[in-house]
Amino acid sequence: MIRMTFLLIAVATLAGGIAFTATPPRTAAQEVAPVFVKTIPNGYRDWKLVSVAHEAGDLNDIRAVLGNDIAIKAYREGKRPFPEGSIVGRIAWSHVPSEENNKTFGKDQSFVAGSPTEFYLQFMVKDSKKYAATGGWGYSSFDKNGKPTDEAAMKSCFPCHQKIQDRDFVFTRYAQ
Amino acid sequence: MIRMTFLLIAVATLAGGIAFTATPPRTAAQEVAPVFVKTIPNGYRDWKLVSVAHEAGDLNDIRAVLGNDIAIKAYREGKRPFPEGSIVGRIAWSHVPSEENNKTFGKDQSFVAGSPTEFYLQFMVKDSKKYAATGGWGYSSFDKNGKPTDEAAMKSCFPCHQKIQDRDFVFTRYAQ
Repeated sequence: MIRMTFLLIAVATLAGGIAFTATPPRTAAQEVAPVFVKTIPNGYRDWKLVSVAHEAGDLNDIRAVLGNDIAIKAYREGKRPFPEGSIVGRIAWSHVPSEENNKTFGKDQSFVAGSPTEFYLQFMVKDSKKYAATGGWGYSSFDKNGKPTDEAAMKSCFPCHQKIQDRDFVFTRYAQ
Repeated sequence: MIRMTFLLIAVATLAGGIAFTATPPRTAAQEVAPVFVKTIPNGYRDWKLVSVAHEAGDLNDIRAVLGNDIAIKAYREGKRPFPEGSIVGRIAWSHVPSEENNKTFGKDQSFVAGSPTEFYLQFMVKDSKKYAATGGWGYSSFDKNGKPTDEAAMKSCFPCHQKIQDRDFVFTRYAQ
């Protein structure tokens, strides 16, 4: 049985491209089960800015990506992978035209942060052991009331982030 | 002459809608001469986030608005006018599609912060006496090399901000 377990882990490692180094042997079921974070980090709204972005299409949001001090330090020093304890967060608001700005400018060109989106807050929390099954990052997502996104939807996080393993699974680059 | 000066101030106040309370009488020439700030505030990149925005059209930028601690506290408490020492800053990057994000998502929808724009950094510094001629705010603007924007262009700051005197001349609202 022990031999069989190792074989399954080896196959999973090859197939998924995930390096499970220095972790004790576990069952295959444990390896692939993602663990989702259910708490919003304290004080995230005070964190420093990583960058900003606009997702058009169905998302139609404008977003800020923030980092806790560990993540910001790693970003600024170009340190990868991100150290343990790093948290990268993003806040997404609906991307809405600002009538008051446009009126003042005399041009229809200004878009601002509207109401919180369905997936208002999302965080990636670095803990290589706890979240080994998802590249060392735990994923979380919350609506404007702090209610976690349901687990079925959360299962789509890692498959997408996994495609950018060479950037330690983090999409956002630091804006200079 | 003293009476004439007061009359000019009174006329300017009525015409421009600017309240010059508790300031010593000065000549009309002094009242209307704008003073531009020529230094970038230390540590602005560490400031907390006020909001994000996208200016389309000729500007075509995506921007973050940050505030120093005095400004953020006033924003969060809804305190207006902003207290002395408040600084509101904004960083503007070109609004560019992210090919790497779009490729990963399988959808052309992601826009990120590109290179710094011509008016990369702009700040409003609250000093009611020093900047009495421009509503109590000093204005500054810098390119990516820290070079201040020329004074001719700076003269367009206040006429636009003056239109929103009821918001203490500040366009950006705090994003909840």
